[in-house]
Amino acid sequence: MAAAPEDLTVAEVRLTPVLVADPPLLNIQGVHQPYTPRLIIEVVTAGGATGLGETYGDTEYLGPARLLADALVGRRVTDLNGLPALADRVCGDSPDATDAGTVHAVATSGTVDAVATVDAAGLRGARTAGKLRRSVLSGFEVACLDAWGRATGLPVHALLGGRVRDRVEYSAYLFYRWAAHPGDRGEPDDWGAALDPAGIVAQARRFADRHGFTSFKLKGGVFPPDREIAAIRALAAAFPGQPLRLDPNGAWTVETSLRVADELRDVLEYLEDPASGTDRMARVAARAPVPLATNMCVTAFEEIPEAFARGAVQVVLSDHHYWGGLRSTRELAALCRTFGVGLSMHSNTHLGISLAAMTQVAATVPNLDFACDTHYPWQTEDVLTERLTFRDGHLDVGDAPGLGVTLDRDRLAALHRRWLADDGTHRSRDDAAAMRRADPGWTAPAVPRW
Amino acid sequence: MAAAPEDLTVAEVRLTPVLVADPPLLNIQGVHQPYTPRLIIEVVTAGGATGLGETYGDTEYLGPARLLADALVGRRVTDLNGLPALADRVCGDSPDATDAGTVHAVATSGTVDAVATVDAAGLRGARTAGKLRRSVLSGFEVACLDAWGRATGLPVHALLGGRVRDRVEYSAYLFYRWAAHPGDRGEPDDWGAALDPAGIVAQARRFADRHGFTSFKLKGGVFPPDREIAAIRALAAAFPGQPLRLDPNGAWTVETSLRVADELRDVLEYLEDPASGTDRMARVAARAPVPLATNMCVTAFEEIPEAFARGAVQVVLSDHHYWGGLRSTRELAALCRTFGVGLSMHSNTHLGISLAAMTQVAATVPNLDFACDTHYPWQTEDVLTERLTFRDGHLDVGDAPGLGVTLDRDRLAALHRRWLADDGTHRSRDDAAAMRRADPGWTAPAVPRW
Ligand SMILES: [Mg+2]
Ligand SMILES: [Mg+2]
Repeated sequence: MAAAPEDLTVAEVRLTPVLVADPPLLNIQGVHQPYTPRLIIEVVTAGGATGLGETYGDTEYLGPARLLADALVGRRVTDLNGLPALADRVCGDSPDATDAGTVHAVATSGTVDAVATVDAAGLRGARTAGKLRRSVLSGFEVACLDAWGRATGLPVHALLGGRVRDRVEYSAYLFYRWAAHPGDRGEPDDWGAALDPAGIVAQARRFADRHGFTSFKLKGGVFPPDREIAAIRALAAAFPGQPLRLDPNGAWTVETSLRVADELRDVLEYLEDPASGTDRMARVAARAPVPLATNMCVTAFEEIPEAFARGAVQVVLSDHHYWGGLRSTRELAALCRTFGVGLSMHSNTHLGISLAAMTQVAATVPNLDFACDTHYPWQTEDVLTERLTFRDGHLDVGDAPGLGVTLDRDRLAALHRRWLADDGTHRSRDDAAAMRRADPGWTAPAVPRW
Repeated sequence: MAAAPEDLTVAEVRLTPVLVADPPLLNIQGVHQPYTPRLIIEVVTAGGATGLGETYGDTEYLGPARLLADALVGRRVTDLNGLPALADRVCGDSPDATDAGTVHAVATSGTVDAVATVDAAGLRGARTAGKLRRSVLSGFEVACLDAWGRATGLPVHALLGGRVRDRVEYSAYLFYRWAAHPGDRGEPDDWGAALDPAGIVAQARRFADRHGFTSFKLKGGVFPPDREIAAIRALAAAFPGQPLRLDPNGAWTVETSLRVADELRDVLEYLEDPASGTDRMARVAARAPVPLATNMCVTAFEEIPEAFARGAVQVVLSDHHYWGGLRSTRELAALCRTFGVGLSMHSNTHLGISLAAMTQVAATVPNLDFACDTHYPWQTEDVLTERLTFRDGHLDVGDAPGLGVTLDRDRLAALHRRWLADDGTHRSRDDAAAMRRADPGWTAPAVPRW
C-alpha cells in the first residue's frame, strides 16, 4: 500500500556564497553595489535528494549559516518546527549574530520624533539578532522543503497544503538608476539612465513589453517628493487605470507623507513606507486617503500587535527570508487574514531559487491580495539551468517536485569564484559605500529626510 | 533518487455515523445523553492508502459532510488549503448548514447585559454556519493528512513540520455526575455518583492513579458557586501544589466571577469561561487575579481581534474540530504566540481518532503552554483496535505513519448499528433533553445564572 519511505535524514549541507551582478539602482541609502552577496544552500538527504535554498550572503550571515548547516546533519528535512529553537541554540552566541557593531535595533516606534539612520539592511526595517537568525534559517527551511518534495515527488506548494491558484501575479519594480556604476565597475547593461519621469515611464514600458507586468512600483526616497510625484503622474498618464505604488523607504515626515498621499490619491494602489516607525506610520494612516503598505514597519511577529492595534499599516509585504521561511509566511498570512490587513510580497536582490520559493508559498495563500514585488528582472545572472519566465506578469505554479528549479553547477561555481576573488568590498551589501564612489562625502541620510 | 510518487488522489470517501456511550456527566445545560453521535471519515487514495478522520456526528453535520465527501473525490489529499473554499462552495447552500432553526449566532459581545441562552453546542461558543462547515472539514483534513502520511510513511506531525516534543501532557477532566443515566438507560459504569467535594476528590484520585494525570479540571456551572469553590478547595487539599482549573461554561456574572477568582486565586492555574461573552470576560479579566481561559469566548478567527484587543482571555483552548483542522490550529497557535496569549486544548466527547489528531498537532506547537484537556477516559468505547494509553498523564508521540492508529471495523460496525437503530433521540446531542428525563420541567438556564 505505502511506498518504502524515503530516507529523509540530512546527510550533508553545502553552503556556497556567491556575488551576483546588480545594476546601479538608486534608493535612499545610496546605490546598489555592482555585486551583491547571496548564499546558496544545498541540503542533501541520505536518500539522495538535494534541496536548494537561498538567503542573504552578507558576511554576518555566513557564520550563523555554517553553525546551522552543521547542526542540521542527522535531522530530518521534515523537522521544520524545531528550526527556530535550533537556530537560537546554535547561533545564539555566534559572534556574527550578536556583534553589536553589525546587528542593532532601529527604533520603530515610541519616541515620536526619533530620527533614525537606516543602513542598507535598514530598508528591511529593524535589525535584530533574531531577524538575522530567521533570515538564515529561512534558506535552510526552503532547502529542506525542496529536498522533501524532490524525494517524494511533491511540489513545495503541496507540502504547504496545496496551491489555491495556478499562477502568481508580480508587479514591475521601477528604480531611478544610472546608466552605469561609478567608474564603469560591474557588469554593463543596456537600460540606460532613468532619472526623471520620462526615464521611469520608458523603464516601465520595457518591463510591460518584456514581462507583461500590469502594475508598477517605483522605488522612491531618492529625489525630493515633488519629483517622485511627477514620476507617478507620468506613469498614471502612460498606463491609465493600472495599479501604481510608491515606496520612499520611510524618507518622509508625517506631513509630507500626507501631502503625497493626498496628491496621488486617485492613482495609488497603496503608498509603501512613506514614513519611518510605527508611530509615524499610524499618524499617516489615520488621515491618508490611500492604504499604507510596509516592509519596514512590520517585519517580524513581535512588531505586529502594536502596528495592527494602531492601524499603522493596511498591507504587509511579506518576505520569507526575514519572516523565517515559507511556513512562517503562511502564519503571517493567517494573522493578516484575521485582522483584515492586506498581504503582498516584498523582494530585493535575489536569484531564481528565492523567486521560486516566493512563488510556491504565494500560490498557497488565499488572502494574497496584491501582485507581488519582484526584483528578479534586474538580475541578469542566476544559478539555475533555466531562468524563471514571467508571462503576462505572472509566474506559473507547476507541479514539478520541490521548487521545480535546477541548479547549474557551472554558473554557481563562476559566481562563487567571483566571491572568492573579491577583496571584501562586495561581501556585505552597503549601498552608502557604493554611493561614495560617486560622491565621496555621502552618508546615508537620516530620516525623515523630507 | 526519488521514489515513484504515490498516487495521492482521493478515490473514495466513506462516512460512518456512530453512537458512542457517554456517562451521565453534568454541566450547565443538563446532562450528557447516554449516547453521543460522532462521524467517522475514511479517505481512500487511488494508491490504496486509507486515512481516518472524526468529527461531530449530529444530524446537522451529516448533510454538509456528505456534500464535502463527494466533492473530495478526484482531489489530492495534499490539497488542503483549498478545503475552506470548497466547503463554502459545496456546503454553503446546504439546508443543514444554514437552517436558522439549528444554526444561529449567540451574541458574544456588544450589549453588556445581554442574556443569552446556550444550547448543547453553545458550550463551544457562538454557533455559526461557518463554524459548522469548519467543524465538518476538519474531519476531512485529518483524514487526508492520515492518508498522506500512511502513503508516504510519515507521521502526521511530520506533515505539520515535525514534533517539538515527544509526548503531550493531558489534564484530568472531572465532572459532577450521577451513578447512572435516568431510567438506567445507556451503558453502566462503576464510577458511582460525584456530587460533592468528596466525590470529586475520589474521582480525581482514580484518574491520577489510573492515568497519572497531575493537573485537574472541574466542569462547573452545575451547582451554586460556593459548592464548586468547596470542591476546588478539596482538590487543592488532596493534591497540594498541583494545577487546578474550573470551568462553569459562562454561568456567572462579572461580580460572581471576580469573587470566585479571588477566593481561589492561590490554587487556580486558570479560570475557564467564568462569564459569557467578550464584554463580560474582558471586565472579569481586567480585575481577576488569575488568568482567564476560554473555549467559548474565542472559538473562531473572527472573534480574535476584539477579544485580544480587550485582553478578555489569557489562554485559548484550541479545538481542531471547530477551528477548522490541525493546520488552522497551528495558525491559531501563531496568533497566540504573536499576541502573548497562552494556548491549551479543549476536548469534549470524542474517540481515539480525534485524540490522536489532537496529540499530533499538540506535539508540533512550540507554545503549547498547558496540559491539554481530555474527555477520552470517559469514553469506554472506541473504533480503534487499540485504545490510546496515558502514561504519567502523557500520550507518547511516535513516528508511526499517519495518525498511528488502526480502525477496528467490527467495532465501527457495531457503533454504526446503534446509530441505525436509534429512533432519533441521540442522533443530535441535547444535554437539556437528557436532563428532562430526570426533571421534566428542565430547560437550559439563561446565563448569567449566578
Ligand atoms: Mg519597501
Ligand atoms: Mg470549556
